Amino acid sequence: MLSVGIIGASGYTGAELLRLLYNHPQARVDLITSRKYAGKPLGECFPSLGGWDLTFESHEDEAVLARTDVVFTALPHQTSMDVVPRLLERGKRVIDLSADFRFNDAAVYEAHYGPHACPELLAEAVYGLTEVRGAEVARARLVGNPGCYPTSVLLPLLPLLLEKAVCPEGLIADSKSGVSGAGREASLGTLYCEVNEGFKAYKVGGHRHTPEMEAQLSRTASAPVRLLFTPHLVPMDRGILSTIYAVPCEGVTAQRVAEIWREFYRDAAFVRVGKGDALASTAYVRGTNGCVLGAVDQAERGRIVLLSAIDNLVKGASGQAVQNMNRMMGWDEDLGLRAMPLFP
Amino acid sequence: MLSVGIIGASGYTGAELLRLLYNHPQARVDLITSRKYAGKPLGECFPSLGGWDLTFESHEDEAVLARTDVVFTALPHQTSMDVVPRLLERGKRVIDLSADFRFNDAAVYEAHYGPHACPELLAEAVYGLTEVRGAEVARARLVGNPGCYPTSVLLPLLPLLLEKAVCPEGLIADSKSGVSGAGREASLGTLYCEVNEGFKAYKVGGHRHTPEMEAQLSRTASAPVRLLFTPHLVPMDRGILSTIYAVPCEGVTAQRVAEIWREFYRDAAFVRVGKGDALASTAYVRGTNGCVLGAVDQAERGRIVLLSAIDNLVKGASGQAVQNMNRMMGWDEDLGLRAMPLFP
Amino acid sequence: MLSVGIIGASGYTGAELLRLLYNHPQARVDLITSRKYAGKPLGECFPSLGGWDLTFESHEDEAVLARTDVVFTALPHQTSMDVVPRLLERGKRVIDLSADFRFNDAAVYEAHYGPHACPELLAEAVYGLTEVRGAEVARARLVGNPGCYPTSVLLPLLPLLLEKAVCPEGLIADSKSGVSGAGREASLGTLYCEVNEGFKAYKVGGHRHTPEMEAQLSRTASAPVRLLFTPHLVPMDRGILSTIYAVPCEGVTAQRVAEIWREFYRDAAFVRVGKGDALASTAYVRGTNGCVLGAVDQAERGRIVLLSAIDNLVKGASGQAVQNMNRMMGWDEDLGLRAMPLFP
Amino acid sequence: MLSVGIIGASGYTGAELLRLLYNHPQARVDLITSRKYAGKPLGECFPSLGGWDLTFESHEDEAVLARTDVVFTALPHQTSMDVVPRLLERGKRVIDLSADFRFNDAAVYEAHYGPHACPELLAEAVYGLTEVRGAEVARARLVGNPGCYPTSVLLPLLPLLLEKAVCPEGLIADSKSGVSGAGREASLGTLYCEVNEGFKAYKVGGHRHTPEMEAQLSRTASAPVRLLFTPHLVPMDRGILSTIYAVPCEGVTAQRVAEIWREFYRDAAFVRVGKGDALASTAYVRGTNGCVLGAVDQAERGRIVLLSAIDNLVKGASGQAVQNMNRMMGWDEDLGLRAMPLFP
Repeated sequence: MLSVGIIGASGYTGAELLRLLYNHPQARVDLITSRKYAGKPLGECFPSLGGWDLTFESHEDEAVLARTDVVFTALPHQTSMDVVPRLLERGKRVIDLSADFRFNDAAVYEAHYGPHACPELLAEAVYGLTEVRGAEVARARLVGNPGCYPTSVLLPLLPLLLEKAVCPEGLIADSKSGVSGAGREASLGTLYCEVNEGFKAYKVGGHRHTPEMEAQLSRTASAPVRLLFTPHLVPMDRGILSTIYAVPCEGVTAQRVAEIWREFYRDAAFVRVGKGDALASTAYVRGTNGCVLGAVDQAERGRIVLLSAIDNLVKGASGQAVQNMNRMMGWDEDLGLRAMPLFP
Repeated sequence: MLSVGIIGASGYTGAELLRLLYNHPQARVDLITSRKYAGKPLGECFPSLGGWDLTFESHEDEAVLARTDVVFTALPHQTSMDVVPRLLERGKRVIDLSADFRFNDAAVYEAHYGPHACPELLAEAVYGLTEVRGAEVARARLVGNPGCYPTSVLLPLLPLLLEKAVCPEGLIADSKSGVSGAGREASLGTLYCEVNEGFKAYKVGGHRHTPEMEAQLSRTASAPVRLLFTPHLVPMDRGILSTIYAVPCEGVTAQRVAEIWREFYRDAAFVRVGKGDALASTAYVRGTNGCVLGAVDQAERGRIVLLSAIDNLVKGASGQAVQNMNRMMGWDEDLGLRAMPLFP
Repeated sequence: MLSVGIIGASGYTGAELLRLLYNHPQARVDLITSRKYAGKPLGECFPSLGGWDLTFESHEDEAVLARTDVVFTALPHQTSMDVVPRLLERGKRVIDLSADFRFNDAAVYEAHYGPHACPELLAEAVYGLTEVRGAEVARARLVGNPGCYPTSVLLPLLPLLLEKAVCPEGLIADSKSGVSGAGREASLGTLYCEVNEGFKAYKVGGHRHTPEMEAQLSRTASAPVRLLFTPHLVPMDRGILSTIYAVPCEGVTAQRVAEIWREFYRDAAFVRVGKGDALASTAYVRGTNGCVLGAVDQAERGRIVLLSAIDNLVKGASGQAVQNMNRMMGWDEDLGLRAMPLFP
Repeated sequence: MLSVGIIGASGYTGAELLRLLYNHPQARVDLITSRKYAGKPLGECFPSLGGWDLTFESHEDEAVLARTDVVFTALPHQTSMDVVPRLLERGKRVIDLSADFRFNDAAVYEAHYGPHACPELLAEAVYGLTEVRGAEVARARLVGNPGCYPTSVLLPLLPLLLEKAVCPEGLIADSKSGVSGAGREASLGTLYCEVNEGFKAYKVGGHRHTPEMEAQLSRTASAPVRLLFTPHLVPMDRGILSTIYAVPCEGVTAQRVAEIWREFYRDAAFVRVGKGDALASTAYVRGTNGCVLGAVDQAERGRIVLLSAIDNLVKGASGQAVQNMNRMMGWDEDLGLRAMPLFP
């Protein structure tokens, strides 16, 4: 049984890690930390998880950091980077859910998030988009778990760029996310009455997931790729749907795109390709680590439309983190993650 | 591996049975039927389940009825009773999710649902409130799976009646349910825009779950018990919260009620007792077979308030059905059902 | 044109006062204040109202308090009482939306809210349940606008107590409210993801609207009346439905109750009585000052069920406040408030 | 007082026409029809409107068609065209809310909707996008009220095409709509549990509003314009947000776009231009006839992002219809439509 810790377990990604690991046959959660809830039982923070006998500790305590074999860090950006080096020094393998280890180029990180405390680790950190970087993940000591929007955008786009099926120019990703992506901090903007019965665009042209996506797209295309990314907020708890507009390369149709996806993801447990927009709903992956893809021709308008849906808390965060742990341990990538969506 | 069939699998309880059985370590779904979808793949009816390679058949076909060892019938009331005898004749054990086998007294059934096609089976059918009738369930050939509202009301009340902690007179259950309880038939009343952003009472004084609850309360109290039951519709997918007003017997407090519950349910995997109203939310059982209970004193007003929350599709229907199957097979009652709630 | 001010206009009741007064033919909003937004345009606080050219001021400024003829105070409890005397000294008529002037008995107020700064005003303050206290409201200098839950419970109950149609003993009000009742302060408990897709009971047996209701019920019954009140939170923005259980007096039926209501409210513009539970939905009053009532017999269970729905922000707060202003000015009570519900 | 009729008043656009006209100072609803509800009171179809004493009639009755001065037809596509000529023959002025009179070219209509019964009327019918075609509307006998999506897309785009601020090539409109746009017919796809907590794309590349938009864009640009349009369904009742990607002409910035809009809409009562994405939420127009616009530069990616939000039932249907009536009568366009949004 692998002993696992979660540093910063009082947010939604922490809760989701707990939910997923509860049923994992090979991993056991032996440590959860939270500055705010240190010393308190899990149920005080999450009554839904109160049937599980776990108590928050403080990650300030060095003895705490010494425990467990694999650690998930689910701290805010700019905070993870203070803890992760201490974990690595103690020989832990770390999967970090913040943005702190998603960039290989410290300058890009610093332009969008602030100074980096341990830029020397960035070269080593593996970008944990499991289906694409699985081999690297398997060997990694430190995985930077991808952002939710990037996961939904990169899974459809990377194979198409690799196959030169779509042009790297003119990419547009119009993404829509449920509210849990905003985290569990009390703020006016995510109050029920501020969000419910409304749909809005936000941070248009300025969301920090743009550089993360552009870095990965560029790496795959072996050339600088620009992405126009527009995030929106949907009045629902979970789910991201990304509608991506791309210029297809000569002769590339939706059918060809589906073939490329099916081939690329033939061994991937969680990617499912549908016909046209038949699967283009977040409801079809709710609560699971799945990603559903679809493509629709719009050749007469010079574009192909790519559709991708994930659960932002699972494939977009905690589920992918567990999937990365599975790869790091040499297990099947879907160990403990096999599940059908909660519908309705 | 137990071979399992689901007759009438195109509704929400059918989908939920499939979701739950997908992860069951000892049961395998070998048969799903639907009149409407016969011959079509599961994913055409439920795209969320489309990754599972199952095809609907027709239960009109006798050969179909001959297959599998245990059968869940998830047909409408008045329809199950035509199929269940044919299954029993073929030696199947049956868990019926309709109301057709919930009553021992055919007259009561017929007063509320219509003529019964096989009243002779009612004496044999076991009311599958697992925590309370588990021993009978274990031996049963035919289980009538309880209604969703009754499950939420009987779990808190039956132990208190047994212990004479509350009076059998003057019971009031004010219950609130998510919309999935209304099923998957297209109807004006359950359209999104008719339900969303509204809260309503319905069938006040006339809901068919009242006689079901009164029959079980009376059996437990060994005397006729009346229950004033008021159902309400909540704009959400899943969950029932019942707020129950009872007259406490001399000296009975909320603390004593909690003790009775803890004692009565000491071996029950799914019942959790909280302090006061701390757990009185459907969010704390979402997607699981759990039932959370709480009690609050109102002695100065001559009452005790009992609170009970379940997921109507799981503990209120398909989860309890699987729990009953587990008991019928002699397995742990929570086999395949251990899970933490989906939150958020 | 009456010049009107709103002290504390940055919360939901403030916004709703603005929405309603925008269309009032005889009143003009000349003043809005907010400590937090002082000096900023209305649209910065409420983008939805940004088309209206108003700027927040500070009510700390004495010159500000000297302006306008009628003032709505929409400040938190314990804060209003510091401002209201200063307004009255300047000859304003005041409608206070906090709890600070809802009690005639300072001791009761202080037991639930804290010390009162000007208990001498309590004798004068009129409880602004307009349909019931309209004559007093018309003459009042200071109106304490009722709480949202009390409005929904008292409108059905007071006429029945007056007519001795229901017993003053054994009253139970099971109430369900949308989230806007919790106000606009950022807090964990009212985040979208904490509330959405869940239904919960809260403050069972301990909500501060209980003494407010008991005081009014007792006044009407001319005897101490106890009410068992259980509030619940519904995942929706607006609306309260109260389900009230009462013991009918000899021979009183739902039909008789409807007659009493129709007679009592024959001149009331906003109360509508339906048949049984036909109108028992918050959707039927959304965005309006209406209150819909219904009654269902449960004589065989010794009770009558009373159903009442309002929009908590309108009839339960700002709409009733405007209605009170109309009565204070001698205008038709529905001036500026005539509207059909927003449905869907 | 203008006498007004609504043919086909039992759907959501009918209900919304009623809500809006209830407060109109110059128009009175004297006639409502419905095949299904003929002979029944309005409240039986819409309990929320039950306080209004109106009874459905049948539009099969010629005497019915002879009444009232102005008629709104809110019938399904392919049905309106059977009634409208009979109304025109009787000298009525007609505002049709179906698609039947939105196209000048019968061939385009027929390619997407089916055979047209009175193509000769298409040349006369005015496309009722009031802010753009107001002068024609004022003189019209027959107005084809625009579709909801087209309204949200054309209001931002037409002035920019006229000013040659954006290229007519490469236009993409990614639109998101609340569920009421799907109408009030009982269907599986719009059941609460099918829609809630999910976000999906639908009819990608094949929605019938595409030709409607392309016709208007082409007319304005005096050249064939193609639009890539992707509709999505948001789990909320009302509202459309369109995110539009356009290639800006040389030197055109978001600031310039805002200037063009402000100038073009300087006399328009309902259009409001915000800074960047500050107003890009459907919550800011809920229940009103408003349209909020915003633009964000993405020059480094070769695009400008245009954002537009309306309430699909008001500006996208019934509100614009009333606005058109106002123009036809020579009244202020906002008569009876001045209102602040319902928030929350």
